[in-house]
Amino acid sequence: MNELTMNLNPKDKRPLYEQIYQYIKENIVTGRIAYQEKLPSTRLLAKHLEVSRSTVELAYEQLLSEGYIESEPYRGFFAAEIEGLVHLVQEQRICAEEEEGKEKRYRFDFTPNGVDLKSFPYNAWRKLSKEILLDDKVELFRLGNPQGERGFREAICKYLYQARGVNCHPGQVIVGAGSDYLLMLLCSVIGREHVIAVENPAYKQAYRLFVSQSYQVCPVGMDVYGMKVASLRETEADVAYVTPSHQYPTGIVMPMKRRMELLKWANEEEGRYIIEDDYDSEFRYKGKPIPALQGYDRGGKVIYLGTFSKSIAPAIRMSYMVLPEELADSYRNKCGFISSTVSVVDQLIMRRFIEDGYYERHLNKTRALYKGRHDLLIKGLAPLAGRCRISGEYAGVHLLLSFEGNVTEADLICRAGERGIRVYGLSDYIIGDKTEKRTVLLGYANLSEGEIKEAAEILCRVWRF
Amino acid sequence: MNELTMNLNPKDKRPLYEQIYQYIKENIVTGRIAYQEKLPSTRLLAKHLEVSRSTVELAYEQLLSEGYIESEPYRGFFAAEIEGLVHLVQEQRICAEEEEGKEKRYRFDFTPNGVDLKSFPYNAWRKLSKEILLDDKVELFRLGNPQGERGFREAICKYLYQARGVNCHPGQVIVGAGSDYLLMLLCSVIGREHVIAVENPAYKQAYRLFVSQSYQVCPVGMDVYGMKVASLRETEADVAYVTPSHQYPTGIVMPMKRRMELLKWANEEEGRYIIEDDYDSEFRYKGKPIPALQGYDRGGKVIYLGTFSKSIAPAIRMSYMVLPEELADSYRNKCGFISSTVSVVDQLIMRRFIEDGYYERHLNKTRALYKGRHDLLIKGLAPLAGRCRISGEYAGVHLLLSFEGNVTEADLICRAGERGIRVYGLSDYIIGDKTEKRTVLLGYANLSEGEIKEAAEILCRVWRF
Repeated sequence: MNELTMNLNPKDKRPLYEQIYQYIKENIVTGRIAYQEKLPSTRLLAKHLEVSRSTVELAYEQLLSEGYIESEPYRGFFAAEIEGLVHLVQEQRICAEEEEGKEKRYRFDFTPNGVDLKSFPYNAWRKLSKEILLDDKVELFRLGNPQGERGFREAICKYLYQARGVNCHPGQVIVGAGSDYLLMLLCSVIGREHVIAVENPAYKQAYRLFVSQSYQVCPVGMDVYGMKVASLRETEADVAYVTPSHQYPTGIVMPMKRRMELLKWANEEEGRYIIEDDYDSEFRYKGKPIPALQGYDRGGKVIYLGTFSKSIAPAIRMSYMVLPEELADSYRNKCGFISSTVSVVDQLIMRRFIEDGYYERHLNKTRALYKGRHDLLIKGLAPLAGRCRISGEYAGVHLLLSFEGNVTEADLICRAGERGIRVYGLSDYIIGDKTEKRTVLLGYANLSEGEIKEAAEILCRVWRF
Repeated sequence: MNELTMNLNPKDKRPLYEQIYQYIKENIVTGRIAYQEKLPSTRLLAKHLEVSRSTVELAYEQLLSEGYIESEPYRGFFAAEIEGLVHLVQEQRICAEEEEGKEKRYRFDFTPNGVDLKSFPYNAWRKLSKEILLDDKVELFRLGNPQGERGFREAICKYLYQARGVNCHPGQVIVGAGSDYLLMLLCSVIGREHVIAVENPAYKQAYRLFVSQSYQVCPVGMDVYGMKVASLRETEADVAYVTPSHQYPTGIVMPMKRRMELLKWANEEEGRYIIEDDYDSEFRYKGKPIPALQGYDRGGKVIYLGTFSKSIAPAIRMSYMVLPEELADSYRNKCGFISSTVSVVDQLIMRRFIEDGYYERHLNKTRALYKGRHDLLIKGLAPLAGRCRISGEYAGVHLLLSFEGNVTEADLICRAGERGIRVYGLSDYIIGDKTEKRTVLLGYANLSEGEIKEAAEILCRVWRF
């Protein structure tokens, strides 16, 4: 073959060489140019198409590097065997649909799991991504340390020490793609021979995770100080999963005395552990924050869990777990070979985000923002005073409203729902006997001040029975 | 306080407002400006510092939004209570070091796990990242579907159908941060009541993963066609983990007959499954690729696993698993609540990478590259013919060299090592009795053609006993 006739279009946005490349490629893939067929020389084709020779050379080079053609010294270019070549035809296949929950749309959704995505630091994130991707290229795309990049773990340690009183060194820190994953990994580290206690009402995500990992899970009741240690002692549990900074969902902040009782329980027997999930400790609007339980642990009993998903955005799949020394050793022995679930690029972006002060600014900014919404919601609900009691306030991103009298939780939810407002019943979080039936949760992170004001007014009307 | 004396430096790269912001912030954080102390008005401070009033206003706004100062109508600005504010002093803590393996450096490392990072499509990746981050902002930072974004799963289905003959719809696909994670998740889906068979010699990463998940694991011997189904039948295993496209580490491509035997075994009893790990099926240099086992499965027995870590870069923490319908249902029931481990942003980048044709080009390009290295290595080792036999060639990114006579594997590794060349012994991959002792693995993805030529020359000299 000495000629290839194609219509080059100078108005086409693609450069000429790419049009040539595409044309030849398609002809090879579809078999119109057969295997081992000789292509015209670059000189001849350039003359034929009335383009410069270097344009054709560029096209041939591209075809060569992608394996569509082969070059034989002194003989020229030949179509390659394309059987093994991957060719993805943009063919439309009809796929069976999986069930995708189509939920009713609400005007105002007081979800307790919200995060204000509008305050996501887009510019800083974009800037850092760009800078990191321009940097030292090859290193970025290696697999990286299974525990997470050392420098990133150092930055986490420093942050945790300053902000949460957590005492640890980078060897104890494991970075992972979300808290669910880290809990799965932890299950493999501590082994399956445990019974796990969870607070009741519970953070269902963790409860279900332990169940999915084949553990026996014991719900343990709470009083106003958090998980009842006396009740914990009555179970066979040797691991207690707790959220002392701001219990999910009740919003209880565990006082020092109860924390010490928990630590005492853990220290009484070997193999007992406390999992401290500090999921939203960043948000506290009154008084001095109580340092993490981990900071008081001298016996290597506390496993500390934290996340950037709650403090920045759920889509940031980065959490961290701090293991006691002994468990950090077990991790390395049993699971140290498991590849990291967070890319080196994302770790470097987050490290810079912390070290350059963006994280501090972001936290202070969102804290101020959430405090404003928190205050406004409480103010807006004031007309309900006497009818209900607010609890779980001054921290986190949701509060609870407990009603007196013979109204039911279902009533409350239904009346709000009829006016386009979604609130959440506490009974959803209770495992087993749902005796509590008059409390609803209102999360405010997701709603603007205007929305909160409007929704609170409506709620006051519909809940004034 | 009506004056704040700070040195504004016009040569400082930071804008003036930021210098003012920093100064006041530091003074509040360190307590030099006390809680509730009044700040100078923006007019006065602007006059005092000889800057425009809007500069000072900008600084105050920033301080206000981050909660360092508070504004009281008609009274002015006051320092906020800073106890609760997060302040990360860049303090140096001495951290105990974890053990980090300091390995001997080699001039040429024939690792079988290499990927040519130089051919990573940096420009395309950067371009797509940038475009995606500019897009529809808020949606990007939501948590996303636990299985992975639907559009991304559709792109994966299309690719798998075209390139590997895998029959599936998006509801069967689960995206996860690496194959290790997906195997962990699979363990939770199928439950712990299984016995798992692995090929011997084995892909140790998977073997160790199953052990870490508390399974009983049975190594099953291989013949030249792959895992011996007769031996598999002698074990109690009901799940077989296999790598039929290019067995790791022996490089055996399982012929159709053996594949059918395996499928027959799986179909004989309920609860039996085959895990098909198609980790490097993209690389094949001769003949038509055999479609995936999954494509022949009519009984819902094959769990298919693939990854972008091997075909693009290990740092791309994205793999996918295709479950038979029934297991996809179990997944949704038991584990459907577990959050995705891959960020929506990364999924969108990869989706565009596939749909815009970058992935196809990248695969064809690296395939051509690896084929060149593969051919060169075989040519370079030709002088050893008669002394050893090459196997596992024409696919993947490594081959095996089996020596005759009374040389040992340790000898081979040691002689190469003395000349700065790292090769890998097959016995590392054997579970239990290491009868095979004269075979080494040479991976070529990581080495340039020049390096392969030079290293092969040296190997021919040192291995010519």
